[in-house]
Amino acid sequence: MFGSGSSCGLPVLLTDVYCKTLLVLNKPRYIACLHYLWGKTMGKKRVCIVGSGNWGSAIAKIIGKNVRDRSELFEETVMMYMYEELVNGRKLTEIVNTEHENVKYLPGIKLPDNIVAVPDVVEASKDADILIFVIPHQFVKTTCRSMAGKIKKDAVAVSLIKGFDQTPEVGIQLISTVIHDMLNIDCAVLMGANLAHEVAEEQFCETTIGAATEEEGNLIKEVFETPYFRCSVVTDAQTVEMCGALKNVVAIGAGIVDGLKMGDNTKAAVIRLGLMEMVAFGEMFIPGCTRETFFESCGVADLVATCHGGRNRMLGEAVVQSEKTLKELEKEILHGQSFQGPLVAREIYSMLELKNLTERFPLFTAIHQICKREMDPRDFIECLRNHPEHL
Amino acid sequence: MFGSGSSCGLPVLLTDVYCKTLLVLNKPRYIACLHYLWGKTMGKKRVCIVGSGNWGSAIAKIIGKNVRDRSELFEETVMMYMYEELVNGRKLTEIVNTEHENVKYLPGIKLPDNIVAVPDVVEASKDADILIFVIPHQFVKTTCRSMAGKIKKDAVAVSLIKGFDQTPEVGIQLISTVIHDMLNIDCAVLMGANLAHEVAEEQFCETTIGAATEEEGNLIKEVFETPYFRCSVVTDAQTVEMCGALKNVVAIGAGIVDGLKMGDNTKAAVIRLGLMEMVAFGEMFIPGCTRETFFESCGVADLVATCHGGRNRMLGEAVVQSEKTLKELEKEILHGQSFQGPLVAREIYSMLELKNLTERFPLFTAIHQICKREMDPRDFIECLRNHPEHL
Repeated sequence: MFGSGSSCGLPVLLTDVYCKTLLVLNKPRYIACLHYLWGKTMGKKRVCIVGSGNWGSAIAKIIGKNVRDRSELFEETVMMYMYEELVNGRKLTEIVNTEHENVKYLPGIKLPDNIVAVPDVVEASKDADILIFVIPHQFVKTTCRSMAGKIKKDAVAVSLIKGFDQTPEVGIQLISTVIHDMLNIDCAVLMGANLAHEVAEEQFCETTIGAATEEEGNLIKEVFETPYFRCSVVTDAQTVEMCGALKNVVAIGAGIVDGLKMGDNTKAAVIRLGLMEMVAFGEMFIPGCTRETFFESCGVADLVATCHGGRNRMLGEAVVQSEKTLKELEKEILHGQSFQGPLVAREIYSMLELKNLTERFPLFTAIHQICKREMDPRDFIECLRNHPEHL
Repeated sequence: MFGSGSSCGLPVLLTDVYCKTLLVLNKPRYIACLHYLWGKTMGKKRVCIVGSGNWGSAIAKIIGKNVRDRSELFEETVMMYMYEELVNGRKLTEIVNTEHENVKYLPGIKLPDNIVAVPDVVEASKDADILIFVIPHQFVKTTCRSMAGKIKKDAVAVSLIKGFDQTPEVGIQLISTVIHDMLNIDCAVLMGANLAHEVAEEQFCETTIGAATEEEGNLIKEVFETPYFRCSVVTDAQTVEMCGALKNVVAIGAGIVDGLKMGDNTKAAVIRLGLMEMVAFGEMFIPGCTRETFFESCGVADLVATCHGGRNRMLGEAVVQSEKTLKELEKEILHGQSFQGPLVAREIYSMLELKNLTERFPLFTAIHQICKREMDPRDFIECLRNHPEHL
């Protein structure tokens, strides 16, 4: 999916021979070597954050500090594209740039003052070497359309966006594929058990970087890693991204179990069967998908966190407790925003139906039908009793 | 570890050729074939349950019904060894055999009337073909000592007991090894996300049977499987058993996170790092350990359930909230019974220390030290920041 090789401009042969030797010897020396090679031979890298919601702001806090601490690698100023809105009559960009706080989406958390909010995406991104995408997935295409042809040719993108893109012509596409295709640059991903406000409060957690090569992944790690935000790198990037979308479907199932007042055994079974459907989905549709990736934070950890907290679990509970439609529940719980789980469930359902595979994925299928109110949530467990995993 | 081949007396060659062909064709016919071969050629099997606590009684409810429903395979009467005690002046065996309810350990749940409580373990087990061990692990050796030489030579055991055995001479041993060595019979295991009272209430869940061969596992499955208790069979039996012991150590860690009032991200990270230490432990010490087994109910599902419910999680929470010793907390929370997690943590710590491996297992090591009150639980997360999984 991603191009391979020297996407960050690193002299790959040299890193391969030299760094890997050092990696065996000693990790800090390996990092020092990366710094040397990358910093000195290619110039400092400029980071831009495309997006500034809850998660974008939490990650901006990390990135602002990291680029300062690693000033041999990165330019100090980080542009953050922010959709302009008024808060109490003042522009949000102006508030962020003077008070260093995103008072609307991440109140109470100070951002480093080298984070500069910019309301024009072209202005924010045109000189960047590393573009961190962290916007709602429905805005990816319009945003990329504005940026296309106006960014650096050798820039690299990192998508933090969860969900799929779907069009009648192409079917389901990973967001990283959309970014790659529209901007003609490599696109890595970062996913994990990372609820934004907990990361902003510096609570210890882990995340997974999926990149085309280990070198690329290790460089991206320099942008994100802190003592409270631990990054693992894998090259099975598409599976990392798929996990980030599918876990929200499973979380609805976990919420249904909660709504039905069933216990920890049943919830654990639903989480495990959901995980096994994620694995089966990956193995069917993602070239190079490996089960190892599901042991990473993006896999089992994010799934467990999402099935015990988060909006989609709450939706599953609400679906049992009321007869309201999805639209009504979105209005009531999310004040009109969309739940991501049902959207993904619908997208994969249409794909599974087309390929005659709904019986292989009874959990995904049931959750789609329950969200559409075509199935009573009380029948959910019935669909799992003869799961293909039990045969 | 286990002997291989025809441990249940099944003509292995015939099953191999005939049943595997049928398995490909059609599952019910495969079961029918097992019934035919096993029932007709070898006679009906007699099941004995060695143990009658909370979990033993919940499983007795299942087994009593299954042997009746599968009367071509099993003798109807199931002996259940029960340590005799008085309840309101009456013998507990007498209450169970007249009122068909274990009023002390599983009140409110009716047992099938073909479950016969017997206070003498030799009497209960001497004619059995299948011995289900479900006693506290500290009683395994004395119980086996009573039974040795007095049971059928071709009987097969199934251990539902969680934990390890440890002696100064041998070090850590699996309970199934102890049973196998003392009774000279095969010993399979059954472990999963199976809180007893939820199983007794017929809430849907899954479990994992680890047996020497698939044939043996499939026969054991006939004893246990119901529409609400779904059994998967694997041949990596030692890993299944190891998961059942180690998950309780990780659960203390999850409880510490709860006690520290940290969020879902941190808890997910602790659960994942615990899982990865379980995997590393298995890969180091269990021949034939495969990562696939951790995807079964005994692995990820039981871990998730135990880290969100159960006693050991509660202990972790209590260790943060008070300064009391483990003994005091056992007295307070379990009325003098032992928590299993600290016991297992101590056993594996002594093994890891001996082999100079404590740095490879910082989570297991920290939990042992916290339980011994040699480390402040507030330092727990500090030990995980540079986990080997992050290198």
